Formats: sequence, structure tokens, C-alpha cells
Amino acid sequence: MRHLSAAQVARLAGVGPGARPYYRALADGVRERIMDGQIPVRVRMPAERHLAEALRVSRTTVTAAYDLLRERGYLESRQGSGSWTALPDPATTTDNPWLGTGGDGLIQLHAAAPPAPSALVAAVREAAEDLPRHGMGNGYDPMGLPVLRERVAARYTARGLATRPEQIVVTTGSQHAIQLVLGLLVGAGDAVLVESPTYPHAIDAARQRGARLVPAGVTSEGWQPDLLAGAMRQSGARLAYLMPDFQNPTGALMDDATRAALTGAARRAGTLLLVDETWQELALDEVPATSPMAAFDTDSRVISIGSASKLWWGGLRIGWIRATAALARRLALHRSAVDIASPVLEQLVVARLFDRLEETRAERRRALRASRDALVAGLREHLPAWSFTVPRGGGTLWVRLNGDAATPLAEAAAGHGVRLAPGPWFGLEGTLEGYLRLPFTLPPLTLAEAVRRLRAARAGGPLGAGPVQDPVIALV
Amino acid sequence: MRHLSAAQVARLAGVGPGARPYYRALADGVRERIMDGQIPVRVRMPAERHLAEALRVSRTTVTAAYDLLRERGYLESRQGSGSWTALPDPATTTDNPWLGTGGDGLIQLHAAAPPAPSALVAAVREAAEDLPRHGMGNGYDPMGLPVLRERVAARYTARGLATRPEQIVVTTGSQHAIQLVLGLLVGAGDAVLVESPTYPHAIDAARQRGARLVPAGVTSEGWQPDLLAGAMRQSGARLAYLMPDFQNPTGALMDDATRAALTGAARRAGTLLLVDETWQELALDEVPATSPMAAFDTDSRVISIGSASKLWWGGLRIGWIRATAALARRLALHRSAVDIASPVLEQLVVARLFDRLEETRAERRRALRASRDALVAGLREHLPAWSFTVPRGGGTLWVRLNGDAATPLAEAAAGHGVRLAPGPWFGLEGTLEGYLRLPFTLPPLTLAEAVRRLRAARAGGPLGAGPVQDPVIALV
Repeated sequence: MRHLSAAQVARLAGVGPGARPYYRALADGVRERIMDGQIPVRVRMPAERHLAEALRVSRTTVTAAYDLLRERGYLESRQGSGSWTALPDPATTTDNPWLGTGGDGLIQLHAAAPPAPSALVAAVREAAEDLPRHGMGNGYDPMGLPVLRERVAARYTARGLATRPEQIVVTTGSQHAIQLVLGLLVGAGDAVLVESPTYPHAIDAARQRGARLVPAGVTSEGWQPDLLAGAMRQSGARLAYLMPDFQNPTGALMDDATRAALTGAARRAGTLLLVDETWQELALDEVPATSPMAAFDTDSRVISIGSASKLWWGGLRIGWIRATAALARRLALHRSAVDIASPVLEQLVVARLFDRLEETRAERRRALRASRDALVAGLREHLPAWSFTVPRGGGTLWVRLNGDAATPLAEAAAGHGVRLAPGPWFGLEGTLEGYLRLPFTLPPLTLAEAVRRLRAARAGGPLGAGPVQDPVIALV
Repeated sequence: MRHLSAAQVARLAGVGPGARPYYRALADGVRERIMDGQIPVRVRMPAERHLAEALRVSRTTVTAAYDLLRERGYLESRQGSGSWTALPDPATTTDNPWLGTGGDGLIQLHAAAPPAPSALVAAVREAAEDLPRHGMGNGYDPMGLPVLRERVAARYTARGLATRPEQIVVTTGSQHAIQLVLGLLVGAGDAVLVESPTYPHAIDAARQRGARLVPAGVTSEGWQPDLLAGAMRQSGARLAYLMPDFQNPTGALMDDATRAALTGAARRAGTLLLVDETWQELALDEVPATSPMAAFDTDSRVISIGSASKLWWGGLRIGWIRATAALARRLALHRSAVDIASPVLEQLVVARLFDRLEETRAERRRALRASRDALVAGLREHLPAWSFTVPRGGGTLWVRLNGDAATPLAEAAAGHGVRLAPGPWFGLEGTLEGYLRLPFTLPPLTLAEAVRRLRAARAGGPLGAGPVQDPVIALV
């Protein structure tokens, strides 16, 4: 059986000396490394005594951590044979909430995922007719169907950024786009700058790539260009992942002066900009006109990502990348190791939805506006101690809890039938515990009910440690 | 500007001392590292003199390699500023054949991709009706839709391998399945055993993961269990990627005794088995009954992959993984960094196609059999010097050229309107030059014409060096 030394475990799962209680933080560290695959399952763990020495803590502390891991199913031991890593038997442990899809009856307030637009069914029917007409060929087109790339390019051009179809690669959703770009352009150990808070799955993708993450703060009021410029320069960041349009989770919108400043700063620092425009089409109020970040680009440094998920529906799993034609081809070639190509039928559906862009967007905006206003009104009435800036677009409200802690609140809320996304999910190293992301992608009445339950959860008794939560998925 | 030292370039792109001509091999090495992202674009290359010293070759040789790279567009130089890496401008270079989809009029004999079955259109229409009934939710289900997981599990059970839906993760095609498994279970530097020849995109995925590739030979006659067992043991392989069912490209079918022997060998070596069953449903002749590899598994070491691509259509991009329920959940969690979930509509289409399994499979078998027989007859008539074993299933013929070299042949064939997949694409380090994979997924008349053109290409004049070929994509 493979084994890990005490020094290796200490390096992989060690926690800062200030963690309290230490044994729980250590157990969490080991569990997280097992869940993210860095500590394999069925490797022998070091003897408690050795790990205690490596960590400079008491043996009792390590024993308590091992006990907790055993209790949770991540460690098995046999007298005389030591302990080895394991996975909890899913048949005997609480189901992982993030692998569910809402069948548990909880209000799904952790995901900012709008429902399908009413036009989807018609678009799917039309695409089903298009499919044989389209000529089905061998089904593999790593760049994406020309019919869809033309529409995406035309949309950029209409936004004021002249774009040719050769500059577009269709992807299997925006997460796949992020993974493709990082996979091609970021190496292990490269610095990647992310906003803090940011989209959690971008952090996941950068971590999986072995990148060194450099956070730069953003608030509901927006970005401070000098801080981001300094972070790019000082870290020598290879790439910065930014969401200038109704940033997820803060909802902030970057003005053109900041876009120009950050593009210039990236040029001076030699940093690529990966600009995620997932929410861009969804301004809800009158907002100042802004240009796509790539419009400020003078040396092919800005790579833009778009998605059908928020404007239309996440179940389609279609996104795209806009880059130079040369980089677009490199990204398509890189797919040979990843997923070959995107599904044809979904691409035809999205092409059909582009033909209904204004109609579907108007429907989505009306619904988001009504939901946002209901959420804001409910919070002001029932949870007046919390504060926030009402976003002018997008689908998420970034709430400052002013004294409440988000993680115990999320645990209590689950007991009241609401699944929450606590602040630390959106940051690095457990920061942002004083924040909560509340999406307004559910109907107004559901949000009103959710707010009442949050009030009850907050007013409830002692919160306790709650169930162990596995890493997040499908948070969007 | 970032720069690479001579030692770094020598390490990344160096070639063996026996390569001839050396300057071309060196240029190819640099180009490949640029294309796979290991040498970034716009980094300064070492001075010719320094690289010549690091490689222990003459400066003239390095100058010739740099000249060739400049000519091909992979290097730019300015007097006094040195040379830096670049990408060819796609507007001025020959289009990459592997980013095309057949619009160039060539017979696409490089891809083993069957056309869509006639039932696809009806299945799509039904799925379009299923979609609203299904309840569209937020669209994200990292494990896959229960309706499809149930059908996949039932199919394994029908094959004699009892399987619960909890053991199935739906993926966005089988390449995505390979990438997910390697991403979760293989670390940089781990040894991964692959058959030689094997499926090229599995090599791509393992390389991207930073794995150390260990080839083990397979022929049209099959596997030699003791050699594979020895390779697993001696390399300490973390994982072995095997295709026991109509192996791509050889078409070999593994008998049950070999399956049992290899599963046992993997157990003793501590090697995971990733078993790709993409072609499994497509026996064309009467073949001995075999059991799924996982049926021989006694300690959760076999992970199986299946796909809708060959049985139905590659444009669907739906595959699946069968593992323990615990590992299936870990794989689904790992998708948070990769692609979140698979498209809903395509999953509903594949569920509908499962309802027509026997009908669609019979259609596919009839077509493949007719095409195989036409290809075999054509080769025997027009190219009798080539030899092969007629496969009893699958979609590919592995041809021994008996003196011809596959790469120049492929270049000549392109001039005669046929796109080929030369042997080296299926192996490591430029081996297998004496082989050619010929798929029989095109109609008999097309294959007959392709064979006549191959004869003409082979009979043609001097072959020359031909155009530079970018890495392969959508080869399948």
C-alpha cells in the first residue's frame, strides 16, 4: 500500500497555528485534500506520533483529528496495520447537497441559475428540424458550428467590437471555456489574479491547473484600478480573471475608465485578461454605456468569454470564447485532450435563440427585476441589520451580514429549508465569512418565503457545527 | 519579455542524437511544444550559439532550425533583439486540416466517425417533447439525468454486470470521461500505461495531465498478458488505459482469460484500469462471448467508460463512466472545475436512443459490415502488398504497409483527395510509421473510391516533405 510521510501530510493538509479548534481544522484539511484528489484514497497515513512531531502539536490533537476523520468515513484503521484514507460510503452518509438538483424540497438559494425562457421549447423544436437540414456529418467541429459562430461574432460587432467568426470558439459552457483557456495558457505555479469575491468554479479551475492564486478585492461599489494594477505587477500574474459586467457575486459594473486603466495595467504587467461576460446582457436598470473590455485591447491580451446560461438556460451547456483567430485555433486544437467538440444540437438551439435575442432578453429582464425587487423588499423588512448595494444588473445580491457569520447561518438555514451560498465560497482561504450571496433568479414569492425562513434561521437557537459539507458544485 | 534559457529549450524540445535531419527534428520539437503550450508564445528564445552548446550540435544546425521555424511562422526575429516564439498567422498559412469538417472535398478517411442513425431525428423530436415534461429546473445535474443513468445501468446489468444508477456519471462524451478520470486520479509524473497503438486523444489527455506514458504493444491478434503485467509492475503504473472491445485502431477483441489475467495483474501492481468500451456494442461477426472487464474486478479497480458516439452519433457528445458509487460522486464533484454538468437535451435524446438500442444497433452493424467488406475487397485488389487482419467488430482496420512509410503516404494521399491517419498518430515518439489506420465508417462506394486514390497516391512521384501538420484533433 502506498503511504504518505508525516512531512507530506503536514505539507498537504497542514493548517496555520492559529486555527481553532486545531484538530478540526486538521481533519478538514485532510478531508479536503482527499476530496480534491491530492491525497489519494487507500494510502497509509503516518502514525499519529510522527504527524504530531511534523506539525509540532500534541499527539492528542492528531488523535482527535484522526478520530473525527474516522467518524466521518475518511479514514479506516486496523489494529497493527495503521490507518489509511477512505471515502465515506454514500449509502450511509448524508447525501451531498451539491450533487442534488432540488429534489430535496429545499429552496435552492445557493445557485444563481435562471429557469429556461419560454421560447426554449420552440427553439428546440426548430433546432430538431434544422438538424437533418444542417447536414449531420461526423458531428465533430472543434471550433463550433459556423451558424452559431456567425451569430456570436455579429453580437460582438453589434456591441461595438468588430469581430469575425474566425475569432470565436464555441465551448461546452463557460466553465469549459475557463478550463480551456487556463489549460492552454497557464502553467503550474503561474500566478493567476482573481477578484475577491469571485466565481468559485474559476478558483476550482485555476487550482486544478496548479496556479498560484492572487486575490484582489472588489466590492459592490466596484474596482480600485490601482490595487488591481499593483497586484498584477507585483505578482507577475500570467492571467487575471475579471467579470466587469454585473460581477458575480457583487453585481458591480465596471465603468469605461476603469476598463481602459486595467487593460493598460495588464499590458504593462504582461498579464493576459480573461474577461467573463456571462451576465453582460442582463442590465436591469438604465446603466451608463460601457464597451466590451476587448475594445480597449491594443495587443491581443484580452480573451472574452460568453455564455448562454444566464441569458437563456444553463441546461444548454453552451458558451464561447472570443480571441484572436490564431488563439481561437489553438484553443480548438487544445480540445483534442479535453472534449473534442461541443454537441451539435445544443449549438443549433442557441443559434435559434440568438434569433430571438431581444424577445428572450426582455422576458429575462422583467423576471429578474421583479425577483430582485421582491428580495430587496423582503430583506429590508425582515432582516434590516443586513446591508447591501442594489445591483443594476446580473442576478446576485452580495449581502454584508454586519455581525452574523455566514457558514453557521447556512447550516441553520438548511434546517429551515433554505440552501445558501455563504461568503467563503467566493473567496480564498476562508475569508468573506461576513457575507452571503443571495441570487434573485427564483420567482418573487419563493424569494419572499426564503427571506422569512432566513429570519427564522437567524433567530433560532444555538447553531452548532452542522453537517460536513463536501466541496461545492453547480453553484453557478 | 519572458525568456527561456538554452538548457530549458534543450530540455523541452531537445531530440535524440540520432534524429535525421537534426535541424528539422529540433524545429519540430519547438513547434510541438509551442502548439501544446509548453513553450509559451512571445517568449524570447536563447541565442543560437547558446542553444547549440546546450545541445552539443553545431551552430549551423540551430541556425537551420530557427530558419525553418521562422519560415513556418513559429519564430520572429529582429536585429539586435533576438528571436521570440510566435504563431503562424492563419490568414497566411495553409488551413489546419483537423479543424475542418469535410468542407474541403477530401474523403475523410482519418476519422472513424459513423454518420447519425436514421432514428436520430425521431429521438430528437421526442426529446424535444420530453424536455418540458421532464421539468427543466436549473439545468445542472453533475451526475447526469436519472432517466439516462437508469438506462446505462440497466444496459450494464443486461450485459451481466449488475450495476446501480448511483454508479453512473454521465459525461460530455468519452474524451471528457477520460479527462475527468485522469484529472481526478492521476498526478503529474505518475506512470500511465497505454496500449501501442492506442486512441490518440487519450495520449493527449495523459500528456496534458503531466503523466509519464508507458506504452505496451498490442496487435490485431491481441494482447500479451505477461508483457502488460510486466509493464504495469515495472513502471508502478498508477493507471492503465485499455480498450478490450474492438480496440481502436487494431480492432482486436480481448478474450475472457486475458481480461481475468490483466485484472489480476493490475491488482498485484496496484494499477487502476480505465477501460474504454466505446466500440463494445459493435460486434460485426459471431464472436466468443466476453464479460465486461469490470466483471473480473474484485477490489474496485476497474473504471469503465462508454459512449453514444459510435453506436449512435459523435455529434451528441454524450458518454458515461461506471465506477463505485463513491468514486462516481467524486468524479461528479471534480466537474466543478471542469464543465459543471452535461447538456440536458442531449441526455434526453440518448435516453430515447437507448429505447431503440436493438434497432439502431442492427442498422449500424449492417452498414459497418458492408463498409468493412468493401474496404477489405478493395485493398486486396488494389493494394495487395499491404496486409491486415480483418477485425470482427468495431470500425477500424489496422494496415501493415510492408515497406511503405505512412507519413509521406498520407501527404501524397491528401494530393489525391484522401485524408489519412498515419500510424504514428496512434503511438508514442514517432513509432508505427509502417502502419495506417483505415476506418470503415464511410459508405462502401466512398471507400472503394478512396482505395483507388490510395493506389494512385502510392504509385505517384516523389513524395517530398509535404505541408507542416498541426497536432491532431477530432480524429476519433
